[in-house]
Amino acid sequence: MSSQPLPHSLPQKNINTHLIEIKDYFKIAISVDCVIFGFDENELKILLIKSDLDQFRGKWSLLGDIVRTDEDPDDAAYRVLLTRTGIQDLYLEQVQAFGKPGRHPAGRVVTIAYYSLINIRHSILKNLDNELHWHPVKKIKQMAFDHKEIVDACYARLREKLKDHPVGFNLLPRKFSLRELQNLYEAILAVKLDRRNFRKKIMSMGLLIDLHEMEDDVPHRPAKLYKFNEDAFQKQENSYLGIDD
Amino acid sequence: MSSQPLPHSLPQKNINTHLIEIKDYFKIAISVDCVIFGFDENELKILLIKSDLDQFRGKWSLLGDIVRTDEDPDDAAYRVLLTRTGIQDLYLEQVQAFGKPGRHPAGRVVTIAYYSLINIRHSILKNLDNELHWHPVKKIKQMAFDHKEIVDACYARLREKLKDHPVGFNLLPRKFSLRELQNLYEAILAVKLDRRNFRKKIMSMGLLIDLHEMEDDVPHRPAKLYKFNEDAFQKQENSYLGIDD
Repeated sequence: MSSQPLPHSLPQKNINTHLIEIKDYFKIAISVDCVIFGFDENELKILLIKSDLDQFRGKWSLLGDIVRTDEDPDDAAYRVLLTRTGIQDLYLEQVQAFGKPGRHPAGRVVTIAYYSLINIRHSILKNLDNELHWHPVKKIKQMAFDHKEIVDACYARLREKLKDHPVGFNLLPRKFSLRELQNLYEAILAVKLDRRNFRKKIMSMGLLIDLHEMEDDVPHRPAKLYKFNEDAFQKQENSYLGIDD
Repeated sequence: MSSQPLPHSLPQKNINTHLIEIKDYFKIAISVDCVIFGFDENELKILLIKSDLDQFRGKWSLLGDIVRTDEDPDDAAYRVLLTRTGIQDLYLEQVQAFGKPGRHPAGRVVTIAYYSLINIRHSILKNLDNELHWHPVKKIKQMAFDHKEIVDACYARLREKLKDHPVGFNLLPRKFSLRELQNLYEAILAVKLDRRNFRKKIMSMGLLIDLHEMEDDVPHRPAKLYKFNEDAFQKQENSYLGIDD
């Protein structure tokens, strides 16, 4: 198209189009890091482990591991989750890759971050290794490596998703009250919400099923219990949210 | 917490918590691949380049490259964009890392995919290297490597974002008609939309500024021109989309 080649139009040798000395580049390690959210005592928490590495002694770290030679990173993330918590039927969403040179003291390690939402009262978690602790997200200041940056990115992704998807339901027990649901939204979004408006909005989303049961064993006046309406949610996902109704 | 250690509670040596023989793992190369969307002739298109690698001769490939030794992957993505198209003031969003073993014939290469939205009529693009071509997304069947899978993931991310964010505006000229905007939504969502409903919805979003100008040089009846209302959009982003109004 151009008679005088501009710098950006010179043929570029790269790995997609031409053979290059790619063997010079196989020098990076890949890891996965899992940001595992739970909801407890009206606080959003993350499951962390203490780091024993010299540079980060005493600092908290995410659950993660190196990706093995013939392992897909997604599989590594599920492996970490299973090995550390015993849980396997959980969805891990890949969020972002963090590859700044120097992020890991041992050398060039690019990590892929995933997040998951756990019901903190899941029976399997009662047998958690005592090296692991749940930490309130808002109380996390310093962490090993760049894990605080990773937590921030995954937390932002969760807040973003919550605006349009009822992801929060995964953090609650199967049956929950509107108060619990509002506490959850407030914990994730880090804002106080007006009770009447919240209930109106949530009910209008059509994603709750009234179980015609009341809470029991609570210190306050028992409230109605609801559960998540998966079918209604699926139907909504398949429409273009207002554009074609 | 448990007197009998369960498999998942055995102390696990991994790179976050203990020193391991990490040097055995520095064997992977990292690349970036850019899915660059443009909108032309009422079709959503992607900028591709022909692959010359033996295995993929004649197949189309994404614009991408190896990440250099001391380079952040995000910087590599911008470098690829600048070197190939001359464009630098463009936002690249990281979408996903693809790390299946065997995805690249030259060895273990984990690639990080980004997407961007370009106004195809951007003046700089007039000088595009003639190795590069715009391809309608729906006509792309086979590509080099796993690039079709990467395109699918980025296209899904674009459709997802479009539901709640006016990302489409980046693909249009600064001034556009409602017809052009609807054509764009239809191209991205791959559906036909009802004209009256679309206009009602779009106007109700409050994100358009009526320029009080008409199209010119068009084969049909000239329509009104609008532009994107950035300020209104920012205000909306800062509210929780209905939860706290």
